[in-house]
Amino acid sequence: MRYLHTMVRVKDLEKSMAFFELLGLKETKRHESEAGRFSLIFMAPEGQPECPVELTYNWDGDEGLPSDSRHFGHLAYEVEDIYALCQKLMDAGVVINRPPRDGHMAFVRSPDNVSIELLQKGESLAPAEPWASMGNTGHW
Amino acid sequence: MRYLHTMVRVKDLEKSMAFFELLGLKETKRHESEAGRFSLIFMAPEGQPECPVELTYNWDGDEGLPSDSRHFGHLAYEVEDIYALCQKLMDAGVVINRPPRDGHMAFVRSPDNVSIELLQKGESLAPAEPWASMGNTGHW
Repeated sequence: MRYLHTMVRVKDLEKSMAFFELLGLKETKRHESEAGRFSLIFMAPEGQPECPVELTYNWDGDEGLPSDSRHFGHLAYEVEDIYALCQKLMDAGVVINRPPRDGHMAFVRSPDNVSIELLQKGESLAPAEPWASMGNTGHW
Repeated sequence: MRYLHTMVRVKDLEKSMAFFELLGLKETKRHESEAGRFSLIFMAPEGQPECPVELTYNWDGDEGLPSDSRHFGHLAYEVEDIYALCQKLMDAGVVINRPPRDGHMAFVRSPDNVSIELLQKGESLAPAEPWASMGNTGHW
């Protein structure tokens, strides 16, 4: 497995990017979704593109989230086999909050409710049970 | 500057370490403070010791913290000159919540109140004003 990023939510993208630039981070990658109405901006120290902070900016705001608790979003890891890992976690009693229905992405939470994103390395796996028909549980 | 770690607070160290081990992380470094009554455990993916999650375990619990919002602790960066960076941040209107009185460590918060730890690279700098006599502001 491989560490990918730490995600934080931002209310004002311009203000937040200015802050992280002041610290010395630079934009390394950006993804804008017109359909999802969000922007993801990855910012990392020079020479360390593998350790970015991901700024998530929802164009219409983060309504419905607790005022303080969700600004810190999640830790993200790339994994060799997302089905095998989710099975191992489930066998150990961990709730798979967002099962890897698409063979690509899953979310679980640590014992302290820190969200952990798991992403399949390379191509998504072919859809497979029990994941394909498993609904979401709680939030993440 | 260099990314160092993402810190999360844990209520039950054994349970949390078991969870992160299930994910595939391994302990890479540990610091126990008898005087401060806390343990810091760094866990990273194999081959990526430079991208750890730091588990902070306070032996007497985290009393007084909001129930959910502080489990995610902070992002940490090592910097070339902590005085120069804090001055630059202050000039830009950023509050230095925990000034680098010791020439070693400072805390600021992002526009969304995400705590950012700054650590001086190498030896601490000699104490210097205005930092040496600057009190803390708020929390971080």
